[in-house]
Amino acid sequence: MPERHVADFAVTARWILPIEPAGAVLEDHAVLVRGGRILDVVPASQANAASAEIIERPDHVLIPGLVNAHTHAAMSLLRNAGGGLPLDAWLRQRIWPLEARLVDEQFVADGTELAVAEMLLGGVTCFADMYYHPDAAARVAAQAGMRAAIGMPVLEQPSAWAQDVDEYLRRGLELSDQYRDDPLVETMFVLHSPTATSDATLLRVRTLADQLQAPVMTHLLESPGDRDRDRRKHGRGPLERLEGAGLVNDLLVAVHCVQANTAELERLAAGGATVVHCPTSNLRLAAGIAPVTQMRQMGIRVALGTDGAAGNDSLDLLAEARLAALLAAGTSGDASAIPPHDALAMATLEGARALGLADRIGSIAPGKWADLACLALSGPRIDPCNDVATAIVHSAGRAAVTDCWVGGRHLVAHGRLARMDTRRLAERSQDWAPRVLAATRAIAGQ
Amino acid sequence: MPERHVADFAVTARWILPIEPAGAVLEDHAVLVRGGRILDVVPASQANAASAEIIERPDHVLIPGLVNAHTHAAMSLLRNAGGGLPLDAWLRQRIWPLEARLVDEQFVADGTELAVAEMLLGGVTCFADMYYHPDAAARVAAQAGMRAAIGMPVLEQPSAWAQDVDEYLRRGLELSDQYRDDPLVETMFVLHSPTATSDATLLRVRTLADQLQAPVMTHLLESPGDRDRDRRKHGRGPLERLEGAGLVNDLLVAVHCVQANTAELERLAAGGATVVHCPTSNLRLAAGIAPVTQMRQMGIRVALGTDGAAGNDSLDLLAEARLAALLAAGTSGDASAIPPHDALAMATLEGARALGLADRIGSIAPGKWADLACLALSGPRIDPCNDVATAIVHSAGRAAVTDCWVGGRHLVAHGRLARMDTRRLAERSQDWAPRVLAATRAIAGQ
Repeated sequence: MPERHVADFAVTARWILPIEPAGAVLEDHAVLVRGGRILDVVPASQANAASAEIIERPDHVLIPGLVNAHTHAAMSLLRNAGGGLPLDAWLRQRIWPLEARLVDEQFVADGTELAVAEMLLGGVTCFADMYYHPDAAARVAAQAGMRAAIGMPVLEQPSAWAQDVDEYLRRGLELSDQYRDDPLVETMFVLHSPTATSDATLLRVRTLADQLQAPVMTHLLESPGDRDRDRRKHGRGPLERLEGAGLVNDLLVAVHCVQANTAELERLAAGGATVVHCPTSNLRLAAGIAPVTQMRQMGIRVALGTDGAAGNDSLDLLAEARLAALLAAGTSGDASAIPPHDALAMATLEGARALGLADRIGSIAPGKWADLACLALSGPRIDPCNDVATAIVHSAGRAAVTDCWVGGRHLVAHGRLARMDTRRLAERSQDWAPRVLAATRAIAGQ
Repeated sequence: MPERHVADFAVTARWILPIEPAGAVLEDHAVLVRGGRILDVVPASQANAASAEIIERPDHVLIPGLVNAHTHAAMSLLRNAGGGLPLDAWLRQRIWPLEARLVDEQFVADGTELAVAEMLLGGVTCFADMYYHPDAAARVAAQAGMRAAIGMPVLEQPSAWAQDVDEYLRRGLELSDQYRDDPLVETMFVLHSPTATSDATLLRVRTLADQLQAPVMTHLLESPGDRDRDRRKHGRGPLERLEGAGLVNDLLVAVHCVQANTAELERLAAGGATVVHCPTSNLRLAAGIAPVTQMRQMGIRVALGTDGAAGNDSLDLLAEARLAALLAAGTSGDASAIPPHDALAMATLEGARALGLADRIGSIAPGKWADLACLALSGPRIDPCNDVATAIVHSAGRAAVTDCWVGGRHLVAHGRLARMDTRRLAERSQDWAPRVLAATRAIAGQ
């Protein structure tokens, strides 16, 4: 029994899915929060004694805040710009030319803010970001109170952020230093792909990642041609090159892996790497369907990502959890290939583990940050709710999200953003929309 | 220019997607409604002259109401009861035993009302229903003001509705007669499957369907074993048996067809039959992925259905449209296999055609019933909206639905059910939930 009023506040809910222990469902319990962290989970009847402030959510379920383990947040400004192109053409004919015309620090700040707003409304409390101008993305996330793993980009090509690999690494490490003591912002190394990265750079990244114990995220084996393209360009496949640099270990976050064959999956499993599954993006860009059931059977950790809004076109991690479960059932012939509790674990704890944050977030456990999402499980879209995890994944969807807390701060309340200026957000989107459209038309006319 | 105040009301919207002509997007137009029908579509500037009442939806898109071309509405009370079983086990070990314990006229009335509420909130204005006690379903739909194609079940087994095929047909035809002059309720013949239906019954249904020009809906080639099971039981495959009875024609509505091979698809195409694609159900029950791209290339009309909530677990037709587009792209390698305008046509006009209702609903065209859905295309989930059809299918989802009209009646306004007692709906769900749970547990314990 906790002491009287030891918590800053308590949230009571009809159900709590703590994710740890796996499959647990608590009824009529409360999460006690103090100093931004989870103090305890107790029966609701004890909440009054433990906290002066009680937030009651009587028809609701509390889950850990969702972890979007792969996105390009600022690309929200390029939403709807993907338009029916397969991955390679989408990148070369549409996205890269658009980025060359549009992307600057303001684009990244405005696009990231829009993405943060969308993600919070959908129950996402942490995102892993891979984009240009990561300083702008980190600043926007921290200002909004959202948790983020911000990528330090390492590219061979110059951009407005850096001229060469030396400068990319230097600026990335400066960013990492800057946020060392910030509870919201983590940093990780991000490569576009092994293909686009030299062996020398892979080795440098490996050394630095080992020193910092920072994750290394890269797109890997996304589309059918990837393996052969690497072999032509580098003499080895992309996974072999990562292995050659010593990067296939538990810091590796390999995004997509749609085309990974059994031998490649075995090596990812042996190294302890994480795969981030982005099922909507993979289908929409005609990359295919990742062999997730096989990955899970082999013991590979699989987290979930939305990818960027330009190829999705939404940052809805609950939709990814549902789609992952559906695709696994439909392609494996096993209707329970990804049970709903597992789908939720992939959307929370597995993402936290991928980003090296599982000691701090990803489940509702004492000592972790109070990163929480709350969904209303009532109404004609959800009634009768006879299985909470199924209802969250297969009936409710993000429209049911009513509240989010990040580090105990109440960022979404009653389905609305509590601390962001939504009118300003809308105005900025309206400013960008015609510029994106004009750029799209200019590129199409080239 | 219409005469002054010729319309009962007008709805102005930033965009209108009439579906006919294909791909059209009208900006700042108004739909004029008189006597429940669409009178005209005019520039918004002319709406004031044409109508005393103007309903303004300035950030919104108007589309034809969605047509859910296959569901078992009353099974909404069995939501979340599917729980990770593949189709055959799901039916035999879970659904059929649950139905034997629970289904009566009240179950069908309450379940259908819940389904109608969910569907209207998601922009669905017409549904094709296949279930027991169709009189109860028809009554509930008509009372709610929703449009429905109600199935006249034809089974070889006795049920509470009828004892033998004679009685099924007699009661079905009585129902059809009863609603002959009702603008909201249509009837069609529904078979569980060719497998479960004798050749003699197939022939009788064919004769009656031809006389009434009524659609004949049946599950067809849903799971891997279906073809062989029919061959063992009847000496021929299910499509051959339908052909033998003369049922493969433009009245046939063949649901699922996940396992149809090229020869079978060619015969469906030659007959002019419609396929109803239920992608979520097919994945969730581990049936597989229907070859929709091939169907469409062969000229087969493909409509969309949610199937019942017991195997989905939601009646969200926009989600089916999105999933259909994603699966077609991901499995065909053609990212534009189902462009967003086509996905919306499948969810509206193709469903109307399947049900023989395309002269009355399915597009925003003068003379058709004013069955309309309105979605708000603004906010952080959707901004910036640079392609309206893409935004509807891939970003907005049913959470953006603000309004529905059926035959000009405003059934959903500002995201809320305007004419249904939602408190009573919730109470009924709460009454049923423990009964369903108890029955589920009793069956599991057998």
